[in-house]
Amino acid sequence: MIYITRRERFSAAHRMFRQDWSDERNLEVFGKCSNPNWHGHNYILWVTVKGEQPENNSFVMNLNILKTIINEKVIEKLDHRNINLDVSFMKDKISSTENLAVAIWDELKPEIEKNGVLLHCVKIEETENNFIEYYG
Amino acid sequence: MIYITRRERFSAAHRMFRQDWSDERNLEVFGKCSNPNWHGHNYILWVTVKGEQPENNSFVMNLNILKTIINEKVIEKLDHRNINLDVSFMKDKISSTENLAVAIWDELKPEIEKNGVLLHCVKIEETENNFIEYYG
Amino acid sequence: MIYITRRERFSAAHRMFRQDWSDERNLEVFGKCSNPNWHGHNYILWVTVKGEQPENNSFVMNLNILKTIINEKVIEKLDHRNINLDVSFMKDKISSTENLAVAIWDELKPEIEKNGVLLHCVKIEETENNFIEYYG
Amino acid sequence: MIYITRRERFSAAHRMFRQDWSDERNLEVFGKCSNPNWHGHNYILWVTVKGEQPENNSFVMNLNILKTIINEKVIEKLDHRNINLDVSFMKDKISSTENLAVAIWDELKPEIEKNGVLLHCVKIEETENNFIEYYG
Amino acid sequence: MIYITRRERFSAAHRMFRQDWSDERNLEVFGKCSNPNWHGHNYILWVTVKGEQPENNSFVMNLNILKTIINEKVIEKLDHRNINLDVSFMKDKISSTENLAVAIWDELKPEIEKNGVLLHCVKIEETENNFIEYYG
Amino acid sequence: MIYITRRERFSAAHRMFRQDWSDERNLEVFGKCSNPNWHGHNYILWVTVKGEQPENNSFVMNLNILKTIINEKVIEKLDHRNINLDVSFMKDKISSTENLAVAIWDELKPEIEKNGVLLHCVKIEETENNFIEYYG
Repeated sequence: MIYITRRERFSAAHRMFRQDWSDERNLEVFGKCSNPNWHGHNYILWVTVKGEQPENNSFVMNLNILKTIINEKVIEKLDHRNINLDVSFMKDKISSTENLAVAIWDELKPEIEKNGVLLHCVKIEETENNFIEYYG
Repeated sequence: MIYITRRERFSAAHRMFRQDWSDERNLEVFGKCSNPNWHGHNYILWVTVKGEQPENNSFVMNLNILKTIINEKVIEKLDHRNINLDVSFMKDKISSTENLAVAIWDELKPEIEKNGVLLHCVKIEETENNFIEYYG
Repeated sequence: MIYITRRERFSAAHRMFRQDWSDERNLEVFGKCSNPNWHGHNYILWVTVKGEQPENNSFVMNLNILKTIINEKVIEKLDHRNINLDVSFMKDKISSTENLAVAIWDELKPEIEKNGVLLHCVKIEETENNFIEYYG
Repeated sequence: MIYITRRERFSAAHRMFRQDWSDERNLEVFGKCSNPNWHGHNYILWVTVKGEQPENNSFVMNLNILKTIINEKVIEKLDHRNINLDVSFMKDKISSTENLAVAIWDELKPEIEKNGVLLHCVKIEETENNFIEYYG
Repeated sequence: MIYITRRERFSAAHRMFRQDWSDERNLEVFGKCSNPNWHGHNYILWVTVKGEQPENNSFVMNLNILKTIINEKVIEKLDHRNINLDVSFMKDKISSTENLAVAIWDELKPEIEKNGVLLHCVKIEETENNFIEYYG
Repeated sequence: MIYITRRERFSAAHRMFRQDWSDERNLEVFGKCSNPNWHGHNYILWVTVKGEQPENNSFVMNLNILKTIINEKVIEKLDHRNINLDVSFMKDKISSTENLAVAIWDELKPEIEKNGVLLHCVKIEETENNFIEYYG
């Protein structure tokens, strides 16, 4: 098995927020991350796929195909957007990095696995001090 | 002259937007940076001060004082905020990184220069591929 | 399972040194890392916890609580300290990064696991070219 | 088990290329990576070994020995070289990062495992956006 | 005056080499950088322009235009190329980073300065330990 | 004029401390940086030289010579040392990064300027959030 990772980036606004809570309750639980006028991040996304080394000794998955899938399924929907308001696959979910990682996994898995590899990990860095990893 | 630089960070939402233009015109000029529902960044701020080496051979400016000034005057007002809506010193300005650098310069200069040094440069990185420097 | 990682930093002095060896023997085995007058590093610490995605769709562990535990149990005891002389949990141990990782694991595990997650990994970078990972 | 990682770097030229294909076919499959006059990268290599914590509480493997093995077996053969033309252990292989990772694993494993540890992972970054991991 | 910097990257092969010298002489002066079969780098390029803050409070230069100019004039000609063999503006020049910086300056200056700003600096990083700056 | 920068690193222990002050006074002024048992850093050093582009179109200064001078005059004396106790050129000086930058400038200038270039800047990063620049 060989593991291949592609890094992409997106800049987005969001707010930690539960619709069934008041603004006060949201601020109490989520602190400044619940600012009603939003804040934002330069998110960094690493997508890792794994596959067998092919007989003809070439690459496990064409990185251009991987890059295209990530851009079409994820980056174009998230980059320069509001995660809470603009992103169909985050609708009705709290916009935590945990939920974002799981949703991106679900977006990518079927398309990536048409290419003879397995999706292994979705990693998202929210700030230089925090990141999330999800392995399905 | 010795130059001392302190790095700080803030995560904020914003939108490139002129109030006297329609949404269409804003999108035409500013592109995806004008998304009406906002987007955001992890901004990195470097503040450089300069001063003479003191006779008693110690430091030019106490970094804890510099850090405190930057945090009180800038970071607390910008971090986890919306630059267009929440930040008094950006009111009625387009929230470009250029304008942000000039406004931060104006916020910091009087307070920093009470400490026997000169403010030399405000540098702001918006993404890993773009940054602005302002020297007054 | 979702994995959450928090990065923290500490700057500390240390010396590779076995008390039952002479300075000569220490220098022979540990080289310049055994300089009798100490040397030091900007250590970077990554603490990874893992947990189930909660039913209410929020975060696996509150990062502010994780940050507070790491700071109280580890950073305050190590930052701007001498690892060999000042740190109770490194007493009578060689101050290798390996030992540091295991000791930090032991410090953090009980406190972190009161929060419904498992401690997964302690990673310490000593220089940009060397790091240690410990999974218990 | 404790995991120790050493980072090294090499700058090399290469070309994605199958000798049994025409230049046209190579360009069609590999794109600009198949430029007949070569291109190149600053490759970053991380080698991770794992071992038990020794009774005498010292380090799992002497990093100077690990560094020497990586330099003699890998870096001296790849740095400032052409991977397709100059590197014996890449002869008759496509110079993909996947193949490079497997070949470096094979070069390092016997020498490293003479030191009472196991080779755990070879990771190679080709650009800041792509890396490969191989665990044997 | 406000300074705006855009970062771009290119991966290229090259060889330090004077055509009027023998291979031996080239190796003697340039060392491993003169390997006859080439080597390569991930070059990082920063282009800094400077201009007055406009009256309408918007940005000094549209970053999309700057990005397009750098890509058309520089990156497309250098990325995945051999600097000695494939790049018209480096013809008959030693492919040192110094010469590359001056040649890129000459390529960019006329096109950039049509946009009401001045080209201020071309910076090129060859490896993480070396970079060149040229201010015209 | 072309500017060339070389990056080097050293790991050292130090303590902010004036010998004519009591430990109490030192702790009051310098805080945790004055811990009597020392602390330490991974310092990063950038040395920038400037020179004219030579007629024969080659490099302004041989980077191997620059690297050798920095290593012999600075790194070997500071790396894995105690700045207060082990470094002759810091004797009787407060071990602030400011003083270190000036002392390194004085160490390097005569040796570097024998090579037909001028020393332009000494930059030292103490932590990822603080650095000093000195231009003579």
